[in-house]
Amino acid sequence: MNNRIEKLYDYMDQNSVDVLLITQPQNVYYFTGFLTDPHERFMGFVLVKGEDPFLFVPLLDAENAESVSSVGKIYSHDDAENAYEVLQRYLPSSIQCFGLEKNHLTVKNYESILAVAGADEIHEIDELLQDMRISKSQGEITKIKKAIDITEEALRLTLPKIKLNITEMEIVAELEYQIKKLGAEGPSFSSLVLAGEKAGHPHGNPGDRKIKTGEFLLIDFGVVLDGYVSDLTRTFAIGEVNDQLKDIYDTVLQANLQAIEVVKPGTSIANVDLTARAVIENKGYGQYFINRVGHGFGMEIHEHPSVHSKASGLLREGMTFTIEPGIYNPKLAGVRIEDNVVVTKDGVDVLSTFPKELQMLDV
Amino acid sequence: MNNRIEKLYDYMDQNSVDVLLITQPQNVYYFTGFLTDPHERFMGFVLVKGEDPFLFVPLLDAENAESVSSVGKIYSHDDAENAYEVLQRYLPSSIQCFGLEKNHLTVKNYESILAVAGADEIHEIDELLQDMRISKSQGEITKIKKAIDITEEALRLTLPKIKLNITEMEIVAELEYQIKKLGAEGPSFSSLVLAGEKAGHPHGNPGDRKIKTGEFLLIDFGVVLDGYVSDLTRTFAIGEVNDQLKDIYDTVLQANLQAIEVVKPGTSIANVDLTARAVIENKGYGQYFINRVGHGFGMEIHEHPSVHSKASGLLREGMTFTIEPGIYNPKLAGVRIEDNVVVTKDGVDVLSTFPKELQMLDV
Repeated sequence: MNNRIEKLYDYMDQNSVDVLLITQPQNVYYFTGFLTDPHERFMGFVLVKGEDPFLFVPLLDAENAESVSSVGKIYSHDDAENAYEVLQRYLPSSIQCFGLEKNHLTVKNYESILAVAGADEIHEIDELLQDMRISKSQGEITKIKKAIDITEEALRLTLPKIKLNITEMEIVAELEYQIKKLGAEGPSFSSLVLAGEKAGHPHGNPGDRKIKTGEFLLIDFGVVLDGYVSDLTRTFAIGEVNDQLKDIYDTVLQANLQAIEVVKPGTSIANVDLTARAVIENKGYGQYFINRVGHGFGMEIHEHPSVHSKASGLLREGMTFTIEPGIYNPKLAGVRIEDNVVVTKDGVDVLSTFPKELQMLDV
Repeated sequence: MNNRIEKLYDYMDQNSVDVLLITQPQNVYYFTGFLTDPHERFMGFVLVKGEDPFLFVPLLDAENAESVSSVGKIYSHDDAENAYEVLQRYLPSSIQCFGLEKNHLTVKNYESILAVAGADEIHEIDELLQDMRISKSQGEITKIKKAIDITEEALRLTLPKIKLNITEMEIVAELEYQIKKLGAEGPSFSSLVLAGEKAGHPHGNPGDRKIKTGEFLLIDFGVVLDGYVSDLTRTFAIGEVNDQLKDIYDTVLQANLQAIEVVKPGTSIANVDLTARAVIENKGYGQYFINRVGHGFGMEIHEHPSVHSKASGLLREGMTFTIEPGIYNPKLAGVRIEDNVVVTKDGVDVLSTFPKELQMLDV
């Protein structure tokens, strides 16, 4: 049994939890080595006090679970069965305290589980799992770094293909083609390539917009590799840009650099956001920086911590998150410079290494 | 106000629901025309009896929501705020009956909402929404057909690039490159390209496996276009294959054709599965067909109805689903032939048109 699972049993002992059910796919992967997206089918990793843990999976996934997971017992249910009734067979007939993920289970799942396995008490395990996952191990950081390396290489290979009149969506196609050729499993989120004023919407959609000289081009994408993700943004100038745009770029770059500067164990999480925000506000662009400066990532593209101006808590060694200040003026342009960092024993390691000085693309 | 929203207000009247909250992103899209993945942020479409409906979105999405949605009132919350406390401002101070999506809300969301908006009674609206969405309108079918057309064109363009020693993942890269060049927003799920015995696992992962002659190659992928999806599988022979493999292919093809044959309004949903299953069982391959014959699709890749052997209910005009019998022998090969169909007034329309006769690829 691995250390992580042992910690769960220890936790169950300390908190008098009889049965613990983990359902969020990345949490299941974290403990078992088995990663799947079960879609609407029910899947869980189950620990019963005093017994060996088991995976409960759709029949479709049973063989894969057996071959890749570290868990010895795999039970399954087929599409024509009621998954909860099947699960009941493997649970104790009476449960005092049931540990569940309230942040992942839907109300319907929850009610279905309790209908077959009534419990006197429900114990939330979300914070326990969040706390275990928030500090990454060296092995996890190595996987993240590999995901970042592929991302940066794909960006390098794509830049020479960016020529006048290419569309945003064609650039997305190139980037995602490159990441797969480089061995990534896929993009870690919907890749964003936004030209000119379109990048002024931080969550815009790439489309038929063609790139033009004198504008910025924002590229925000990442990959999944071996269950871990990256998330990188760089903004490029298409040919020469005017002084107003250069000032926006310089401001974001300063915000990025100064925010990174304050990262170390013990610093308040909010301070990372506030540092970047102060740089942008001092230059008069405060109204155009309308979101948090960053978010944790690892197996998921958005994990804890959420790095915003009112975040409570302090940075801890092993936390991995993005630092991505931006200025978004929907009438003019959008600039974001996003790095991936990890908190080290006494400071920060910037895992992304793609140059940040304003680069003019020769189209 | 559109017809769909009017139906919701009528439903609220008939069921004495005071407030109705829709949170599943595709459901929000269905009623408002605004589609976003809010990740962990909170988003909802809210109807209060006797008032105009409003969208409640993360600040990041507010501008986009305003420009694309048909809803006049948009309220937002920023990353440093408690979304539920902000939402409370726009809800009545006392709610008798609150309509919610128990299949979508997490237990945590649910508890957070009830903490700020206590209600005497909770009313599940999942079945209402499912029932509205299960029969597609002509407009929706047109969008689905466009998604399928791009899928089939991408497959046509990719086949000539399949040469000896190309890997599964390289074929995925080609397919996904083509769909984006053809204008799709992206794949509708993780594209599957599986060679030889690897296709014997219905949910295997594409990887470094190279294609070889004498084997089958299974390709299962789809696209998202304008919020609607496709889901197509074809299995090809790499050069000549032996009679055993041909027999497996013919069996799956017969199962596919006969299942399609029984589709019409009023037929039991289970009968579609049982028809395909009987063909496969009669040829002695029953143990290798371990999943349901199909699933609804539309805005999501898996929607109602679930087409399995014990499904209750009857087919209705406008239902769109996959028919995808398969034979999966993990030691030998996997064959699946998947079409997308719609139930018409008096029968079935097969929306996917890619040929189904066994095609040998000349590698």
